[in-house]
Amino acid sequence: MSRRIRGTPYTGMVEKHGVSDFTVVNHMLLPKGFKNSVETDYWHLSKEVQIWDVSCQRQVQISGPDASKLVQRLTPRSITKMETGKCFYIPILNENAGMINDPVLLKLDDDMFWISIADSDILLWAKAYALGLNLNVNIQEPDVYPLAIQGPKSESLMIKVFGEDIKKIKFFNFRIMDFEGTKQVVARSGYSKQDGFEIYFKAYDGHFDTIEMGEKLWKTIWDAGQEFNISPGCPNLIDRIEGGLMSYGNDFTKENNPFECNLDRYCKSSEHNFIGKKALEKIKKKGLKQKMRGVMFDGKPYKPNGKLLPVLSKNKKIIGRITSGIFSPKYKKNIGLSMISKGYWNENEKIIVETSDGKLVKGIITTMPFPK
Amino acid sequence: MSRRIRGTPYTGMVEKHGVSDFTVVNHMLLPKGFKNSVETDYWHLSKEVQIWDVSCQRQVQISGPDASKLVQRLTPRSITKMETGKCFYIPILNENAGMINDPVLLKLDDDMFWISIADSDILLWAKAYALGLNLNVNIQEPDVYPLAIQGPKSESLMIKVFGEDIKKIKFFNFRIMDFEGTKQVVARSGYSKQDGFEIYFKAYDGHFDTIEMGEKLWKTIWDAGQEFNISPGCPNLIDRIEGGLMSYGNDFTKENNPFECNLDRYCKSSEHNFIGKKALEKIKKKGLKQKMRGVMFDGKPYKPNGKLLPVLSKNKKIIGRITSGIFSPKYKKNIGLSMISKGYWNENEKIIVETSDGKLVKGIITTMPFPK
Repeated sequence: MSRRIRGTPYTGMVEKHGVSDFTVVNHMLLPKGFKNSVETDYWHLSKEVQIWDVSCQRQVQISGPDASKLVQRLTPRSITKMETGKCFYIPILNENAGMINDPVLLKLDDDMFWISIADSDILLWAKAYALGLNLNVNIQEPDVYPLAIQGPKSESLMIKVFGEDIKKIKFFNFRIMDFEGTKQVVARSGYSKQDGFEIYFKAYDGHFDTIEMGEKLWKTIWDAGQEFNISPGCPNLIDRIEGGLMSYGNDFTKENNPFECNLDRYCKSSEHNFIGKKALEKIKKKGLKQKMRGVMFDGKPYKPNGKLLPVLSKNKKIIGRITSGIFSPKYKKNIGLSMISKGYWNENEKIIVETSDGKLVKGIITTMPFPK
Repeated sequence: MSRRIRGTPYTGMVEKHGVSDFTVVNHMLLPKGFKNSVETDYWHLSKEVQIWDVSCQRQVQISGPDASKLVQRLTPRSITKMETGKCFYIPILNENAGMINDPVLLKLDDDMFWISIADSDILLWAKAYALGLNLNVNIQEPDVYPLAIQGPKSESLMIKVFGEDIKKIKFFNFRIMDFEGTKQVVARSGYSKQDGFEIYFKAYDGHFDTIEMGEKLWKTIWDAGQEFNISPGCPNLIDRIEGGLMSYGNDFTKENNPFECNLDRYCKSSEHNFIGKKALEKIKKKGLKQKMRGVMFDGKPYKPNGKLLPVLSKNKKIIGRITSGIFSPKYKKNIGLSMISKGYWNENEKIIVETSDGKLVKGIITTMPFPK
């Protein structure tokens, strides 16, 4: 821990709850686990409700007269028809159409956006681009610390804290709700395949102490969550893979284009200009060499150890590598995500996975999310 | 460990040597300590020689016809007279003249530079700015993994490995040296106040296996270093503070301007245009509110715990916070770095530090680096 790797308003809370490990995302702590195993947390998440410190989902706030112009330049997805109160998943590309982030965009007003980012400094990207183009925008990282409430009981819990209006929030929409006299953005979203919400907790520095107010929010939810069997949690690897939720930096990097990541539906618009457009058109013409797929495979229950297991074709050609993988108690098989070479990416294609101890085990290509 | 938090070609080596902990810089592992205490490592570093995995000092490679134009736009320091083979410490500012990095710039050729960065995605910053200005440059992160050899015996060791030409490399200069048939940049530099070198080990992917060649380099230096009592190491907090070496993200952030960081000498040029120029001129006119200073203080030997100790004036006004601090066995006092408010930043100014357990102890303002 240092000042460079930032704590969050909830760090004290997660430590109190027995956080076992942290990772670093956007120069900020993200809890990696608590007292229970990933599998125990997985079952809990699928039945109950959890509270997650996801403050590391930093916001890049873009405001001013050229705000929507800039935002539109940053992504192939059209925001022409985006309404205030909506959340859009937007790929962000570099000039080669390589993915440099896959954030969620929130439209707070016609001239005010938040980009809720994965692990890369999009603040710098957006700022430098705006400077180069001499756009009239203000770009900053506001004091916003998202707190996720995930799991099937999250709606009941959220109603208890914020009232019946919670029901009106549809998936990937948000509303401004009141908490202790402060206005807070509450979205129905989250990095799990369960129902859930993200409270974009905003600290009103100067009016309230950030940590004090953050802890108050945490405790309010925690107390209200007792009847729903709430537990502290964090993004769950089993749930995430089953749900086909990719992780930037793990499953795809700037070496990958959005088509390889199955993001075609966000790259349909040809009407607006954006960074990477030419490269993307070229790739579309040329066709793809690989695509992200689910993989289900045999062998001993797989525990991730940082090594990327090779995926082989029946004739032992390397056709991919498992970038996220773990044993699924639901399928009673190992599951993983992998870019898969052309010719082998069809559903139910039989493949071979080389395990950590060098064994060759059988597997198949599946859809993402994994079949129900 | 995940793919998002990248290993280095030397990660296997530092694990073999008993690394106790890692931190994350530029999405990559940086060893934080080995078997010995920070103090033991400090004494060793000041007398012997150490090998450090500083691969996380990622390179932003800028090449092409507009390379020098772009680099010049990125920093207030003039590069007009910079020669090939030189290393320049360059502040990088945002539009408000806030520091967003303080890297070392290497000029490899008239149209080819490396920016060896601290912890922020300057690759994205430089790329987006070039895209906005439509500059003719190529920007990428090359497969370069710096390895630092630090300590008074580093020259003798480096001569043994690379030959007598090592002597010709002056401080903040580099030469291209041969290692196993590959060309490697070797600079006299490093993140310690001792003599030392940084080998910008370049992997020639396709010709050599990166890890194999990296480990070969490590082992070659390790074996040659036996007679010099070499040990594995990492940036040493005591040595760094005594030497007045600031850490981006810890001692200063984008909220600080270069004058506050005592970087006036790199901001003298008024002849070229650069990001943050107007804001910097405004700040110069208006004067500063605070400046980075050394602080020496009494009390129990201080162990950093993530909390920033308040620095108070004689009349108990808060005038700063210790952003990096530790007990110095050399001065037999606690030492630290802190931004200090105007009116209190003169050398030998008497101050008070509030320790972790709430005690008020005496201290003074010192120069950076600390007095010999």
